[in-house]
Amino acid sequence: MPREVTSFSNETVKRIRALRDKKARKSQGLFLAEGLRIIAEARDCGFLPEIVVFARGQPLHPLAASIVADAEAKGADVIETTPAILSKMSGKDNPQAILGAFRQPDTSLASINRDASPLWIVAQSLRDPGNIGTILRTSDAVAAGGLILIDDHADPYSVEAVRASMGAIFTQAVATTRWEEFIAWLRSGKGQLVGTSLKTDTDYLDAEYEQPCFLLIGNESQGLPPAYEDECDLLVKMPMLGKADSLNAAIAAAVMSFHIRSAWRNAP
Amino acid sequence: MPREVTSFSNETVKRIRALRDKKARKSQGLFLAEGLRIIAEARDCGFLPEIVVFARGQPLHPLAASIVADAEAKGADVIETTPAILSKMSGKDNPQAILGAFRQPDTSLASINRDASPLWIVAQSLRDPGNIGTILRTSDAVAAGGLILIDDHADPYSVEAVRASMGAIFTQAVATTRWEEFIAWLRSGKGQLVGTSLKTDTDYLDAEYEQPCFLLIGNESQGLPPAYEDECDLLVKMPMLGKADSLNAAIAAAVMSFHIRSAWRNAP
Repeated sequence: MPREVTSFSNETVKRIRALRDKKARKSQGLFLAEGLRIIAEARDCGFLPEIVVFARGQPLHPLAASIVADAEAKGADVIETTPAILSKMSGKDNPQAILGAFRQPDTSLASINRDASPLWIVAQSLRDPGNIGTILRTSDAVAAGGLILIDDHADPYSVEAVRASMGAIFTQAVATTRWEEFIAWLRSGKGQLVGTSLKTDTDYLDAEYEQPCFLLIGNESQGLPPAYEDECDLLVKMPMLGKADSLNAAIAAAVMSFHIRSAWRNAP
Repeated sequence: MPREVTSFSNETVKRIRALRDKKARKSQGLFLAEGLRIIAEARDCGFLPEIVVFARGQPLHPLAASIVADAEAKGADVIETTPAILSKMSGKDNPQAILGAFRQPDTSLASINRDASPLWIVAQSLRDPGNIGTILRTSDAVAAGGLILIDDHADPYSVEAVRASMGAIFTQAVATTRWEEFIAWLRSGKGQLVGTSLKTDTDYLDAEYEQPCFLLIGNESQGLPPAYEDECDLLVKMPMLGKADSLNAAIAAAVMSFHIRSAWRNAP
């Protein structure tokens, strides 16, 4: 049975509210996902929330009810609360009808099985959690294996990243590491490291992409450091036909990964 | 000579600060662009700010000084102020060193010259100003003519959209209109209307794109209304290889527009 929470100062209310802060996510090992669509995606991928919260006073959507039942059977803390408290927990005026707090998975490089997909996205020092979530969503769309985050980066488990991922945070593998460790891991097996650069004459449409392909995307404002470009097995140029000399990081990742998929499809 | 402003309650400080609000942008007919890079892009495209603000106490970058001089020669209000007031105007703790308030251009459909480019992006009911700015940046990269915003949408002159455009707000034409007016205008001349849809079997890689091509992108959460799909001359499907059934709107616009450019390049 759900327990009813009607106080703003309830400890679980405070814990969930705190999950919008990175430190609290780290110390609790949890992250927040909002809305039935993404929580249903989570269950499809084998993830159930450890804490699940919904508003009382309105009948629960049958799908939500079934997820709540599953979570409860696995020992989740199930909370029914007022719309006002739900709103406080989500930090939004019009919160989703259901929230879940999920355990953060292992994000070590060792958790990545490179044979699981021919395509991986590697992003260096991404600062914008929305970009991380959008790249995860794209990564899902091209059936990449997931996203490897290099160096200092925004938190893939932030509310913004999870929301922008539209559920792909649950379908995609995520690893976080430093450049040196990543290169050591990459070179311990098969894999072509592909970077986009202004320094090459090889058009991205004319290059040959090998499997598994690791697509390396640079930071939003600086692009890839020269030493990182030097390490790439293939550098390609995306033509900039206008005045701008760069693309948004999530856009570059998407155009490249859709093209790589199409190049493989059309390969002789 | 710049005038010095040292009071938070100065009328121009209030006016600029208000430009983060859509109503004020509309009543003043101005919008805010922040940072030397984007203001320099503006001048390259023939736009000078009507009000330009920079922080006193540090030498002005030579490029900034030259833009300030040009703006002043055209009658701009040039203001030197304290870092604290600059911060208040931009609403950021670490504001850019220079801000400009620019006149909003004509955004009527009549201002669009369809012969200026073989490719145009048309977006329906975009809600996220960051998406609008990102699409403008992509539109510049593929040398599209610009962006036509249909129905209710976020403001392309909001601070978030201008920032995400990375200057493309000045290189790209922007029009805002309603669906019926857009279709009447479109059908008064040449143009292929292309939509992305889950309802078709035509893969986007196999379709033929005519010039001028008007690429129609649906709203972030609902996609294109059925009646809008029906009006398209060509519907294409972007394969979704994972669990998600849609892409972020700016991602879809980018993958499609880069592909259309490459299809034309490779056309026999």
